[in-house]
Amino acid sequence: MSDRHGQDRRGVLRAAAGVTLGAGIAATASPAPAAAAGAGDSGRVEVAVLLYEGFTALDAVGPYEALCRVPGVRVTTVATRAGLVRTDTGELGIAAEKSLPQVTRPDVLVVPGGGERGTTATMADARILEWIRRVHRHTVWTTSICTGSLILGAAGLLRGLPATTYWASRPYVKEVGAVYTPGRFVETGRIITAAGVSAGIDMGLHLAARLSDEQVGRAMELALEYDPEPPFRTGDPDTADERTRALALKLLADSAV
Amino acid sequence: MSDRHGQDRRGVLRAAAGVTLGAGIAATASPAPAAAAGAGDSGRVEVAVLLYEGFTALDAVGPYEALCRVPGVRVTTVATRAGLVRTDTGELGIAAEKSLPQVTRPDVLVVPGGGERGTTATMADARILEWIRRVHRHTVWTTSICTGSLILGAAGLLRGLPATTYWASRPYVKEVGAVYTPGRFVETGRIITAAGVSAGIDMGLHLAARLSDEQVGRAMELALEYDPEPPFRTGDPDTADERTRALALKLLADSAV
Repeated sequence: MSDRHGQDRRGVLRAAAGVTLGAGIAATASPAPAAAAGAGDSGRVEVAVLLYEGFTALDAVGPYEALCRVPGVRVTTVATRAGLVRTDTGELGIAAEKSLPQVTRPDVLVVPGGGERGTTATMADARILEWIRRVHRHTVWTTSICTGSLILGAAGLLRGLPATTYWASRPYVKEVGAVYTPGRFVETGRIITAAGVSAGIDMGLHLAARLSDEQVGRAMELALEYDPEPPFRTGDPDTADERTRALALKLLADSAV
Repeated sequence: MSDRHGQDRRGVLRAAAGVTLGAGIAATASPAPAAAAGAGDSGRVEVAVLLYEGFTALDAVGPYEALCRVPGVRVTTVATRAGLVRTDTGELGIAAEKSLPQVTRPDVLVVPGGGERGTTATMADARILEWIRRVHRHTVWTTSICTGSLILGAAGLLRGLPATTYWASRPYVKEVGAVYTPGRFVETGRIITAAGVSAGIDMGLHLAARLSDEQVGRAMELALEYDPEPPFRTGDPDTADERTRALALKLLADSAV
């Protein structure tokens, strides 16, 4: 991976005064991801983001954005069939680049959550669950966001393990045999489950460092300008008031297709 | 907008014990968005997210996720041509539902940022700039994320106005005639510019409240479980160290196509 633009190129993304990309930085930017992540013969780390009808867009795009610039990483999207997959509101379509049979040995699996319909349908989709079990045998990291952990659980991957999920779905963690554990993300062995929707960004940045080194994680956090200032401070379900919780659930249900 | 699932339905997204959706909540969940946002004859608030080759996925998906469940809001994606539009890494494709001529009177315009190539090409794309100018005449809110503010600026919308942008692009705000102003987002009249990438989530939640009421903003923040814990605390460009800044810029350049 080389700086195709040359180190002197300046443009709208390069305007920060005084930035020089010296040899030390170049070395840091090119760790040996194959060694760190156990990449296959391709020498690249393949991250497969599973898409399914009714997934939640930010669940998938948060980790994608955190991982797609990590040296040596190639992110791909996969679904039962290649082509457009609709989100839980039906208002957005994201392309699955590949079908399940085309992705056999990803180094990293990312399973986003979805609305009620998409999650429960996927938890009952034998073909997807069998694919998850098969690729998990060889992954370096198997991860989920939001209700994606219930899908990992339905595939039998979380039995007896600590895991998190979307706040409103916490009781279901037990039903798939896992032990609900609080946290923006919960790492156990080579499985990482993230909490709801936006927690995929936190998990993705953590994973970026795991796949490379901490300096890359730090740089990606800055690349996303991830210095959040949630405007209402109601994002923590443990402190949100009941009215806000009830309305959130209503808006989710009303927007579902 | 009604709860199509009925108030007694419970499922993986409804598991939070003790939640009841009473009449008071139902009333809150159905404010009069047409009045609040100045919607057209359709009675719905149309949010148009502009896509262009080389846009940054999270810039577009953050606001989409914050807005798509606001009562009365319909989010659509628009590009020069309808169909798949590739992101700045080339690794993800998101569908534009409509072409520019098909979207004439959106209530809200959202312009994401992009990589160097996508941003500069769009800043020089007379057809897109003319469309932005035309729809801006009637929008209730015209918004941008990251380098999207430079595109609004290139369209002539920011002359003399306070605005923000991606951290590395701050000097360019002046070049499009605006006054760089710090903040996760900067609201001036009916224009809101957000800082880099993830700041679109903060802005989107703020806008959700503007389009409805604060209670909906609070509920959407919880719906996204937006209680962030950035793992490295390096997302603030004003406090990030020089090595992190330089590596972030290098990773951005290296991942661009």
